[in-house]
Amino acid sequence: MKVSELSRRSQVPLPTIKFYIREGLLPAGTRTGKNQADYTEEHLERLELIRALRDEAGLSVAAIGRALTAADSSEDFIEAAIDAIERPSGPRVDEKSPEFRTARDAVMSIARAQGWEVAPESAALRDAARALTVITRSFYADAATEAVLAPYAEAASLIARHEIPDGWRPSEAPNAALRYAVLGTVLLEPLILAIRRMAHVARSREVSQAASVPAKRRATE
Amino acid sequence: MKVSELSRRSQVPLPTIKFYIREGLLPAGTRTGKNQADYTEEHLERLELIRALRDEAGLSVAAIGRALTAADSSEDFIEAAIDAIERPSGPRVDEKSPEFRTARDAVMSIARAQGWEVAPESAALRDAARALTVITRSFYADAATEAVLAPYAEAASLIARHEIPDGWRPSEAPNAALRYAVLGTVLLEPLILAIRRMAHVARSREVSQAASVPAKRRATE
Repeated sequence: MKVSELSRRSQVPLPTIKFYIREGLLPAGTRTGKNQADYTEEHLERLELIRALRDEAGLSVAAIGRALTAADSSEDFIEAAIDAIERPSGPRVDEKSPEFRTARDAVMSIARAQGWEVAPESAALRDAARALTVITRSFYADAATEAVLAPYAEAASLIARHEIPDGWRPSEAPNAALRYAVLGTVLLEPLILAIRRMAHVARSREVSQAASVPAKRRATE
Repeated sequence: MKVSELSRRSQVPLPTIKFYIREGLLPAGTRTGKNQADYTEEHLERLELIRALRDEAGLSVAAIGRALTAADSSEDFIEAAIDAIERPSGPRVDEKSPEFRTARDAVMSIARAQGWEVAPESAALRDAARALTVITRSFYADAATEAVLAPYAEAASLIARHEIPDGWRPSEAPNAALRYAVLGTVLLEPLILAIRRMAHVARSREVSQAASVPAKRRATE
């Protein structure tokens, strides 16, 4: 189809389509003449994907660009897109400091224990190591130890096995798969954190109620 | 001690101390004369707690005020503080809509299945229901079902049991306990989300390697 038809069917204005092509969010069409190019249903699906990531996941155009460019330039396009999802950056961490390296090694080690292949340049690995550096520095000196970290990896594995079913075939419908992977990763985050807070509240109550049970009774239980 | 000594020992300027008292972050001292009040070690500890929540957890003074005011006005001060931690709000959700109510019921139901006591006015419950409403609306129509939600509750329970040990006695050192609970809840969040992304990447790879169908070349390339 012509770009005018792509614009009409997607309800995305022509200048926005051109902007997305320039920024690497949308592949250019196949050139058919001096000022003409041909666009396919895939382009239409990609525009719908961009709309969902922008309006529903609330990602910036720059963040969408990074995720889709990563996906387009990798054989493992889903892994590349998830890894490239931009996270709001926390406190500054010197990535050449010994603290950062210790934290990074600890994250690598629990990942290996779970059988995860982690690329050394992974953005998620860097984010985890940054967060762990801050935790170790200002909150909990022993945070970067396997015993402390392992339960987070176990919980994440549990969720990942649940969210990504065995028969998943991303390459059969790449744009739909990208939508599922990226939107799912982003939209579920506030739910996961809120449910964690509920679990914390419940667990605090449980522990403090157990503490008020007379010691004698507990000893015989 | 006098307020001047409190300021010297805490290294918090006098006007800031007065501001914290006005905003409800710090309890007022015991009045001992027309222009004098007495402050205790508890005040000193509370100032250190405020500093940690502001500088290390990156919470705003308003958010700290809400968490500490909630803690000060409740018997279950740890539960109240965790529940009051302010989360960045996502997309607008009409809390009177049937979608929100369905989401809220679903969250209540998985909480009950875990044996969690959840107060109807819980902020964490509201945040979870808001997130779930958005997920159901724009991503995954079946999201608000028990089968889909239960693994998140299980993962959260796993983490909560790990983070809040059996012998925890918050009332023995309230300010230290508040620091642990609030800072721990906030600082661990980016780590949990980054580890989840690592698990997603690993799981995607695992599933696609297991796929017997040869990967198709993506048409958008």
